[in-house]
This record gives sequence, C-alpha cells and structure tokens, in this order.
Amino acid sequence: MDRSQLPDSKGLQTLQDIANRLRILSIKATCASNSGHPTSCCSAAEIMSVLFFHVMKYKAKSPRDPSNDRFVLSKGHAAPILYAAWVEAGYVEESELMKLRKVGCLLEGHPTPKLAFVDVATGSLGQGLGAACGMAYTGKYFDRASYRVYCLIGDGESSEGAIWEAMAFASFYKLDNLVAIFDVNRLGQSEPAPLQHDMNIYRKRCESFGWNTYVVDGHNVVELCEALGQASLVKDRPTAIVAKTLKGKGIKGVENEENWHGKPVPKDRMAAILREIEEQIQTNVPLQPTPPEEDAPAVDISAIKMPSLPSYKLGDKIATRKAYGLALAKLGHANPRVIALDGDTKNSTFSDLFRKEHPERFIECYIAEQNMISVAIGCTTRARTVAFASTFAAFLSRGYDQIRMAAISQSNVNFSGSHCGISIGEDGPSQMALEDIAMFRAIPTCTIFYPSDGVSTESAVELAANTKGICFIRTSRPETAVIYSNDEKFEVGKAKIVLQKENDSALVIGAGITLHEALEAAKQLAAEGVNIRVLDPFTIKPLDAATVIANAKAVGGRIITVEDHYHEGGLGEAVSAAVCTEPDILVHRLAVNGIAWSAKPSELLDAFGISAGAIVTAVRSTLAN
Amino acid sequence: MDRSQLPDSKGLQTLQDIANRLRILSIKATCASNSGHPTSCCSAAEIMSVLFFHVMKYKAKSPRDPSNDRFVLSKGHAAPILYAAWVEAGYVEESELMKLRKVGCLLEGHPTPKLAFVDVATGSLGQGLGAACGMAYTGKYFDRASYRVYCLIGDGESSEGAIWEAMAFASFYKLDNLVAIFDVNRLGQSEPAPLQHDMNIYRKRCESFGWNTYVVDGHNVVELCEALGQASLVKDRPTAIVAKTLKGKGIKGVENEENWHGKPVPKDRMAAILREIEEQIQTNVPLQPTPPEEDAPAVDISAIKMPSLPSYKLGDKIATRKAYGLALAKLGHANPRVIALDGDTKNSTFSDLFRKEHPERFIECYIAEQNMISVAIGCTTRARTVAFASTFAAFLSRGYDQIRMAAISQSNVNFSGSHCGISIGEDGPSQMALEDIAMFRAIPTCTIFYPSDGVSTESAVELAANTKGICFIRTSRPETAVIYSNDEKFEVGKAKIVLQKENDSALVIGAGITLHEALEAAKQLAAEGVNIRVLDPFTIKPLDAATVIANAKAVGGRIITVEDHYHEGGLGEAVSAAVCTEPDILVHRLAVNGIAWSAKPSELLDAFGISAGAIVTAVRSTLAN
Repeated sequence: MDRSQLPDSKGLQTLQDIANRLRILSIKATCASNSGHPTSCCSAAEIMSVLFFHVMKYKAKSPRDPSNDRFVLSKGHAAPILYAAWVEAGYVEESELMKLRKVGCLLEGHPTPKLAFVDVATGSLGQGLGAACGMAYTGKYFDRASYRVYCLIGDGESSEGAIWEAMAFASFYKLDNLVAIFDVNRLGQSEPAPLQHDMNIYRKRCESFGWNTYVVDGHNVVELCEALGQASLVKDRPTAIVAKTLKGKGIKGVENEENWHGKPVPKDRMAAILREIEEQIQTNVPLQPTPPEEDAPAVDISAIKMPSLPSYKLGDKIATRKAYGLALAKLGHANPRVIALDGDTKNSTFSDLFRKEHPERFIECYIAEQNMISVAIGCTTRARTVAFASTFAAFLSRGYDQIRMAAISQSNVNFSGSHCGISIGEDGPSQMALEDIAMFRAIPTCTIFYPSDGVSTESAVELAANTKGICFIRTSRPETAVIYSNDEKFEVGKAKIVLQKENDSALVIGAGITLHEALEAAKQLAAEGVNIRVLDPFTIKPLDAATVIANAKAVGGRIITVEDHYHEGGLGEAVSAAVCTEPDILVHRLAVNGIAWSAKPSELLDAFGISAGAIVTAVRSTLAN
Repeated sequence: MDRSQLPDSKGLQTLQDIANRLRILSIKATCASNSGHPTSCCSAAEIMSVLFFHVMKYKAKSPRDPSNDRFVLSKGHAAPILYAAWVEAGYVEESELMKLRKVGCLLEGHPTPKLAFVDVATGSLGQGLGAACGMAYTGKYFDRASYRVYCLIGDGESSEGAIWEAMAFASFYKLDNLVAIFDVNRLGQSEPAPLQHDMNIYRKRCESFGWNTYVVDGHNVVELCEALGQASLVKDRPTAIVAKTLKGKGIKGVENEENWHGKPVPKDRMAAILREIEEQIQTNVPLQPTPPEEDAPAVDISAIKMPSLPSYKLGDKIATRKAYGLALAKLGHANPRVIALDGDTKNSTFSDLFRKEHPERFIECYIAEQNMISVAIGCTTRARTVAFASTFAAFLSRGYDQIRMAAISQSNVNFSGSHCGISIGEDGPSQMALEDIAMFRAIPTCTIFYPSDGVSTESAVELAANTKGICFIRTSRPETAVIYSNDEKFEVGKAKIVLQKENDSALVIGAGITLHEALEAAKQLAAEGVNIRVLDPFTIKPLDAATVIANAKAVGGRIITVEDHYHEGGLGEAVSAAVCTEPDILVHRLAVNGIAWSAKPSELLDAFGISAGAIVTAVRSTLAN
C-alpha cells in the first residue's frame, strides 16, 4: 500500500473499524487497571489507526528494526492506545494489555523503552517532538535512509516551549521526513486547553514556524489519509497535521465533557459503552503494516577507541573545556557515528574543534538547550549514534526534566558542561554551574566525569563514548597544569592518588580546579612539615569509595573535600555518604556556600574558601582538633 | 512628555545622542573590565535611549518605586548598556560603571537585584519575558495600576521555548501593559542566529502568538518612538516590537561582523572608535524621565498569619497535597496578596481549592512550567504578592534553570510539588519526583518543607509565606494519618521527635510517607522489645542538625534514614553531611536506588526497601553489627 494513495472504501472502513477496536482495548485496559487515561486515547483512535495501518512502514514482529518508521507518543498518558495498536499489529497479546499498570507488566502507565516499540520514554509533556527531531535528523543526514518519523502531540502539551524549540529546529534543518500530529481534543487535565478548538491559531503558529500544515477532522480517516499522504510528498519542510478531535470520542456522556481526564469509565457503564462502539464495527479483518525499505545502514558503535594516546606535556597548561574539544575531535576519527551538538556556545565549550574536523556530524541547536538535549537523545535511539551535547554546565539545568526522562528512556546520551563553578570569574553567578553535580548525581543511570587535566579529560571522553547510561563531563574554564602521563590509564569509578607520603596526616579530595589548589596547598604544608595525601576521584559518580576509605584510614581518618560547587549534593556529600557507615572517618567539607558575584577567579576561590590557602587552613585546623 | 506623541526634531536628536552616549559608556566600561559584551550593547543603544528617556515613566532617584514602569533586560549580557542608562538617568555614577565586573562593584557581568533598578537577575537567556509577564499580570489584575512593563529580548534567545510560553501567556491574558522588544542584531555568540534578519518570520511568529506586532529599524529613533507610542494605545493585546539592528552598531570594523561576541574592543583602537561615535553627538542635554502616575496601591505582605488553628483530628487520614490546598485557601483569607499559580494540575495538587475561594487570585499557567515559575517570580517582585506555584514535583525539574536564577534574583517565590516519590504508584516513573530534594537543596536561598501530616502541612504553608528566599513544599499523593495536635508549633529548621522511649536503640528519620512507615516499623519492633526513636525533620533544609546529633548520641549513634527519593542529595545525604564531623555516629540510608515502574504504592515501597518492613530489617541489622 502506498501511503500517498487513498485506500478504497473497504480499506477506509477497515481503518475506521480498527480505530474503534483501539478504543475498546483502551477502555477495557484502563478499567482493568482502574487507572489511566481512556479519554485521551479515544481522541487519537483514528490518528493511530491510520498511522499504524496505512501510513507507517514497519515490521510488526521487529519493532526496533533500524529501517522501520519511528513513532513517538509525546502525549505519553495515552499509552493504552499505543499498546492497543501493537495488539492490533500482533506484537502484544491482548491478555498482556489487560495487565496494564500492574506490577511485572511492561505496559506501564506511560511508555518506556523496556518495550521494543518505544524509543524514548514519555509522560513528562512536550518532550516527544525534540526526540523525534533527533531521529529525523539522524534518518535524513546520518543514516540517509527512507524511514520517516511520526510524533503525536497533545494540544495541552503544545503550551510547552520545548515543542516550539523543536518546531523551529525541524524547519531550520528541513526535516521533511518528520510529521507532527497535534491531537487537538480541546480539554486539558483540569480545564480546556487555552486555544480550545481554534484550529486557525494552531495553523498560523505551525506555519509561522516553517511547517507545511494541514488542519483536518481527526476522526475522519479520509482526511487523515489524505493529509498524511500529502505529507510524504513534501520536500524540505516538516509537516504538521492539526487534527480537531473530541476527548473521549465515542464514549457516550463522556465525549467532549470536562472532568474526565485520567479516569477510567465507570465499571457499571463499561458494557454499554463497549457495545455501542462495537456496533459501529463493520469488518473484522486485521491489516498488515507495510514493511519498510531496508536502507538503514549497519552501524557499530561498540568499543570506540581513541586512535592514539594523548600528547600532552606534564606541566603544560590547558583548560579541561579545551581538552574536551580536542578529545572529541579526535574521537570523531575513531568512529563515524560520533556526533556533537551545541547550543550556540561551541566557541566556549570547544565543541567547535569537533565541528571543524567533522562538520557534517555537528548539529548546531542554537539557544534552546531543552531541544538540544532531546535531539541528542533522539539521535542516540536504536544505537544509531554516539552523541555528545555541550553547553555551559549551568545551562544544562534548563533541560533537567529532559535529562531526568532520558534516564527513564535508557538513553546513552553524553553531556559536557563547561564553565563550572565560581572559577569562571567575571561573568558572574548566572553563568556559574554550582548545582550541576547535585543534579546529575540524582540521575540513576548517570556517570559523572570530573577530569582535572588534559590527559584525564581525553580518557573521560573515550570512556563516556563506551559507557552505558547518561554521561556527564564537567569541564572548567581556567587553564590548569597537565598532571598525568599520556599513558596513564583511567577507569570509571577508579580514583587516583596524585600525591602520597608515608606520614600523610590528612586526605584532601579535590577535582578540577580544586585538585590543583590542593596540590598547591600540599606544597605550602610540606614546607611546614605537614604532608597531605591528595586524591583525584576522576568520576564523582560512581565514587571510588574503597580507595577513599582505605586512604582515609591510612591518614588517621581525616578527610577534607574541596569543590567548586555548592555544599549540597556535590563531591563533599558524595564522600560523606560513602563513609557514613565507617567509624573513625570524619569529613570536613570546603565548598561554595552562597550566591557568588563578579570578580577574578582567584578572588572568588579565596572568598568562598576553596583556594589553596583555605585548604592549608582547614588542614591545620583539622590537625589541631 | 506623552509617550504616544513623537518628540520634536530636537528631542529626537537628543534621543539619538543619548544612544551614542550609552554606546560610549558600554565600550569604555567593557574595556576597563577587559571583559563583557559591548557589541550586544551597541545594537540596543537606540532602543534603550528611547525607552528610558522618552517612553518609560519612572522616578530616576527611586528605581524600585511600585508605580514605576518596569524594565527587564532579558538579554542580560548587555548589562553595561543598562547600567549606562542609569548613569545617564543620574542614578549611577560613571566612575562606578568603570569598575564594571570588579570585586566589590554591584555592576556585575549580568544584572542582579542587588541593584535597585533590577527586579530579576538575567543572564540565563530566555527568562526575562516570563518574569515580565508576571509583573504585567500583577500590574493589570492585582495592582490595577497604570505602570507598564518593557522587556528587551535578544534574537538569539528567542530560540528558547520559554519565550514562546510567555508569548502565549501574555496574549491569552490580554496583557496590554506589556511590550517586548526583540533586538534582532542577527548574530549569536558563535554564528548567526537561525533567522538572521528575516524580519517577516519574526513578525509572523509574534502575530500567530497573538501579539500586536511592529517591525522597525532599531537604530531609527523615530520608528522606535512611533511604535512604542502606538503600543501604549493598544487594548487587550501585548505589543511586540521587532527591531532590525546591527550587532556592534557604530563600531567601525566590528559592526555586523562575526566573532565579536563577548569581546571588548581592542584597547589600541578604543580612542578612535570612541571619537567616531562622539563626533556624531550634537547635543549634550540630559533628558529627565517622566515620573509615573502614583497609582500602585500600598501593599503589606509582612507577618501573614493563618486566621485560625488547623482543625484536623488525630488519626484522620488526609494526603498532604490536599492539606496544602486547604491551607493555601485558608491563607488566602489572611492576606489579599496571597496568590496561586498552577500548570493545569490544580485538581491534582489541590491548588484548585484556593482557586475556588479566591478565583481572582489564581493564575492558570497551563502546561508550561518554565513560564509558570517565571511568572510567579515576576509577581513577587517589589513585594507585590506572595506567590505559591504548584505542579507535580517532578515537573518543577522543567524549570530548574529558572529556579536557579530565582535564587540569584533574591526571589521570595514559593513552590509546592505534589506526587513526590514512588508512592504515587501506577502512573509510573515519569510522574515520580525522586530528585526534587537534591535539586532544591542545591539552591542556596531555599527552604525545603517536607510535611508529614495535615497539621504540619498547614504550618509549612504559613511559614513559607513568611520565609525569605525560595520555599519548596514537598507533598505526597497517598493519604496518611494526622499525627500532630492542632496547636503543635512548627518552626523552620526545628525537627520533631514523634516517638521516644528511654531505651531507644536507633534513631529513624523519615519524612512524608516514610515517617509513617517508620511509625509502623516502631510498632512491629516494639513487639520484639526493640524501641526506636522516630524523628520528623519537618524542614530538610535547613536540617535541624543539633536535634539529629543529640538524639543520635542518645541512642548509641545509630541513625537510619528512610526517604521516598533517590539516595543522592536527599534526606539521607543531608543527614550524613550534618553528622560527618561527628565521631561515633553512623548513618544507614534507605532510599530509592533506581528507576521505578508502575505498580501499587505498597508494592513499590517494598520493592525499593523503604517500607515499614525494610525499616524493621535495617534496624535489626544495625543492632546486630
């Protein structure tokens, strides 16, 4: 079946009948679980039927085939109708769907990639389109394959700015393989959505953001087939289909009524409701989806190895942000699927060095960090790319919800955040990341690299490319000395002792700029006859607790942590937590204790007590007690 | 001077001359600091001149007067020209401006409210308009005053979705007292902004979002005066002025060229550059701003007291989210300036209970959490309101950058996040906040309330209204028993011992749902002859370290924390950090250790080891060691 051709009348009736079967399954499943969103499913029934059984090309038995068309359910609470579509396609058992939201069943309240037919978790609204953009960008520019990407968006979530970031991105990059369907069912959770059924405003907004736009009756399979067919013929522009629908369509007494969000139909009315929908069904023939053209290339992103050792000189100075850019550019030569994204800070994060060597694999996302993060997540789905997205670490906070969801999405995306801490100096507090470690530590699947010189930064980049889950590489603005030999070997969760004597009297743990302050403090203290052991954690998460504890014990249980981060959730708390069941180990924490201001980096390190001088004082005070 | 009247030719020349004086000051100041963004200032020189010396009504000697027009510099990196405008207005000394970005000078790299003429800190892009919306909403609907709000936005930052959330909000609420000026200088930090000088696309986007829109030459003071004059006459619609400008306008060899973002002009060329600009200046008469109509009402938001004690019954069950809604509705009767905002979750967070009693003080922000947060921040500026913004706690992560900036803004905004933790059950991980405590703890000015019953929730709401800085109230979905008497007195930073015997053998610290699990565990353990002490921290930040330590010592140094949050950055780490310099106190932490799934709340509490049963096991194991 060609998706640009209208089905015959029998085919159209079958699509309408499938829509009603999807309704029935959604209503039954949410009744069985006694929770969920059947009305949000029912508005989308015809859209789902036409997409899954007329438009999309995919292998129903192999949902994650790289050549399949992609579907992203941005309005994740309509999960039951997505599951129902895969029941109809023969991939999911109906009996399984009746265990919806129950323990042990992968058909959860909102979709996650535990299911092979889900690429990204949804349920926090407004995030699907950005991920779909990443998939479409990958399809058009990296895979150069014919698969297309469809994203179903609720009207309520179209208030999310992330949607409009993605809308701008998709048209800018001419993603003609991307279709967004807005399910304008008029009603939000607690009241009507702001635009209600004003289809013309939706049309104008989509058009002004550069999309080829059709307004259709979302319950009319002919109009849906026509618009989606047309969409497949349009070049250089993404297509938006703005579908006027009714929430709870088909459920008598519920359809288009308020106060039915997230509520199953009453048990005592279910039989009558189902009967009414069943009576409209005229056919009972399953439709087979059209298989895709198998033109997505084979991709191998396993075991990516730097083409050569680092080539730094001990003592030479380089900012870790620059070492990041150099390393990433180098890694780009190791595997053609390494890509980089940035949000108009590439000349600060040094991702520009990657762009210069691999321009075709760099995605400028402009000043829209949420979308940059979502695009990166989308690019990494189905293991098509190894993506590194960078901006100032402070601005990754803009996409914390997206990062949170990325963990649920089982994403392997990598982030690099530059300009961490007060050590950026004059630009002032708005540009300083001082909560980023706290933020990333509270992401269950996250590995946090906090390299302290050029050599370890290069290792961090290589390791991140090969580490599952989310990786965050924290880089600094000031130049610092190279302290490791080029053949030094780094591992995730393995700390380095960078300074050690037999009679060390305290263990100082620093990272990035503060590791260098600790080394300077060690020099000053040595002149007083006091030796300190200095530990570089390399990864803050996982923290190398064993090495921390063993070395703390070796120095009499005195740990001093020093970090260019707030006290809460950072290195000091990670260490405190790691030793909290160890008797005889005490932790003194030096960290930033309030909002900073514009000044020279060294002035701020002193003012906030994380400089070499402050470490010297802390060591003395610890030893005096 | 009436802002809707065009100045005479002399007045126009004076405005042009002021623009050039602002350029000169911006160039000189950034040369003196050897950092900063003079080119981003120069594109906005005529806009700033016309705004500050023709259009805006304000008292130059009293920048924070409630009746003044407001100005928000969303493109905060253009700070020098804002400071220059206040030099020109006579409020800031030129000599002070020459200390730009230096330690001790409040004229920092980006504006903060340490300066009386700044209401919200900017510097993380795309946040100004949302705050301006809050100010304009307050002016129109709460103050019902004639002041107007102007927001200057960069073209680069107009890629931020937060801008479009605010655009939708402003037109929906007919904020005709709001004007956004887009300074379309074509060039971003690292390359041209995506739309370059395509003014027509900007026009279409603004119009499609419901704004009265003018495209002007941003260096033509006549066009600016005309457009801003027209804007003051338009009813029921906000006005967007899309100004075509040149980055670095007036700086020969720099104007409209790439690679000049964030760079002072070369020192050796400064004199020639300044001379060229000076030569264009024909007048040297300062203009006095027109004073405002003094019609902003007096407002008192100090010492807000609940009109009555709580009226719960010990043992009755109520979800803290519902207790939050009841308390907020009650507080609304105590002070007419208490307002509430929500993001289409009001029937879940129970802010709907406030709306029902005080509909005119409730702002529905729809599904756009970033903008909701920014609007709330804007509403609280100049102490005009006490704002409580609520949504699912998980979705507050959407606005973490806004919350981070709110601390720099010295904001007193309050947040309530419902549906915390795995105890929400069937909806699954996308809806569960498990990183929110980590997130808010890493905000320096934040107080975190985590009430465990109806009575303490009511206190939390009252205390939040009176506590400076950012407040976060974490509420739970399940119903839990009332455990405090209605006359129990709560304080910020004061924990409660809710169960105590002389021979207690461990201190269990829980909050919200886990406090009740701890109480249940205590019952089971008591049957075995083991007594535990149970502590309710009430506020997680500040944590009552003294009470924790004293009680830990009283029970032999054994602390067990149990929380419906990830291990990182939550209650357990707060406690670990609080006791990390105490010998003889060990902390065992029970917390959520990975991504959750859909299941019944009780099944999840068990699966993640934070149930009563898990506490019993942990206590036994601790005592056995």
